[in-house]
Amino acid sequence: MSIFKKIFSKSRSQEGGIFFDSIQKILGFQPTNIENYKKAFTHRSSNKLDEKGHPINYERLEFLGDAMLSSVIAAHLFNEVPTGDEGYLTKMRSKIVSREHLNELGKDLNLIQFIESKVPVQHFGENIHGNIFESLIGAIYLDKGYGFCEKFIHKKVIEPYVDIPRLEGKVISYKSLVIEWCQKEKHVFHYDIFEDNGIGGERLFGVKLSIDEKVVARARATSKKKAEEKASQRAYFAFQEKMNKSKAK
Amino acid sequence: MSIFKKIFSKSRSQEGGIFFDSIQKILGFQPTNIENYKKAFTHRSSNKLDEKGHPINYERLEFLGDAMLSSVIAAHLFNEVPTGDEGYLTKMRSKIVSREHLNELGKDLNLIQFIESKVPVQHFGENIHGNIFESLIGAIYLDKGYGFCEKFIHKKVIEPYVDIPRLEGKVISYKSLVIEWCQKEKHVFHYDIFEDNGIGGERLFGVKLSIDEKVVARARATSKKKAEEKASQRAYFAFQEKMNKSKAK
Repeated sequence: MSIFKKIFSKSRSQEGGIFFDSIQKILGFQPTNIENYKKAFTHRSSNKLDEKGHPINYERLEFLGDAMLSSVIAAHLFNEVPTGDEGYLTKMRSKIVSREHLNELGKDLNLIQFIESKVPVQHFGENIHGNIFESLIGAIYLDKGYGFCEKFIHKKVIEPYVDIPRLEGKVISYKSLVIEWCQKEKHVFHYDIFEDNGIGGERLFGVKLSIDEKVVARARATSKKKAEEKASQRAYFAFQEKMNKSKAK
Repeated sequence: MSIFKKIFSKSRSQEGGIFFDSIQKILGFQPTNIENYKKAFTHRSSNKLDEKGHPINYERLEFLGDAMLSSVIAAHLFNEVPTGDEGYLTKMRSKIVSREHLNELGKDLNLIQFIESKVPVQHFGENIHGNIFESLIGAIYLDKGYGFCEKFIHKKVIEPYVDIPRLEGKVISYKSLVIEWCQKEKHVFHYDIFEDNGIGGERLFGVKLSIDEKVVARARATSKKKAEEKASQRAYFAFQEKMNKSKAK
């Protein structure tokens, strides 16, 4: 083996190793076949072909991931909302798997860092984030089967984002729910900024919510208002039972 | 217990027993929770409510089954056609899960025999067949999970019906493929009717195809032409490799 080849293969395997580690962190499990995950982030502009001359890019995996996501969300809604009829379930699912929502999910996981493309990242539209989020789900299905796919979707989509009352439009503001409850139950509360960062072009606010002088929730967002709402939502989920009891009184 | 109650509960349990046996034959496995399967055939006109006052009918299960069917078909196409891009896969899936195709599947399994409804069966449109085929898939998912669902769809949808060359519109007639091949390779062939039944309102023809005086395929259908085509398709799948080699020569 020539020195050139040695260096080349070393640097390739290191590159693969970094990808492997980063993707493992996002997945929460060890991938078996890393190739599918690489494919999940390969844009068609890279013009890659496999040994049979078929193009290698994420588009087929996106189709597969979209199908898996739809069925996992369908089953979740079916179980979670026993009173919802077919029309309700269809509407709720389309809200959850909306392009806008999937783009947000892909952005939150910063999947764009893995993209392999000949087009500069800033030339992509918003949808790239959602597309590679779906192709990642497709890669998980191929690598590990439906069960892993389901767990991943629960952890990354359903638990942090699927908030049925909000999707139903019943909850307009969690902050107002929290304030109402505190006032009714004579709790002292306040929202405080604990962070105000301006690094990397985007300003980021950290807000903590204290009830009876105990910090009950923290959140970061691009505005003070958004961070307060996020913290309130977290507090709402933590105290849901108590709050609903108070409401029913 | 009054005699009336005894007779009633006996007849109910017998009825349940007959349903259990018949559905088990269609499923190919023993159901664990029969209630979901009963629900899969309960039409909204029956106005049934559960103990919480929620309506019992197949519509929610239809939503669930539709999602499972879509994801199983997506995975099948993904694996089966490695050259197909996202657009191709989407188009092929929508052909397979078309209303028309699902109605045909439901009819072939004679699922309408299980319907519980206050509307007379003849008043339903065509779509009832496909709807209860989907709700049956939903019931299987709830009862046994994704793996069973996948196996059922492979056995009842993919193996007997998903014929990719035909869906692609590349094969117009299997009979002409068979004839062409026999003539080219100097095989003697003939189609013979072995059955001609008129029982039950519908005429049914049985046709066998012999090649070199050996019966290679049999099929039944509602016309001689359809039965010949079905038998030819079976022969094509059996001799596919040979036929394609001959074509390439």
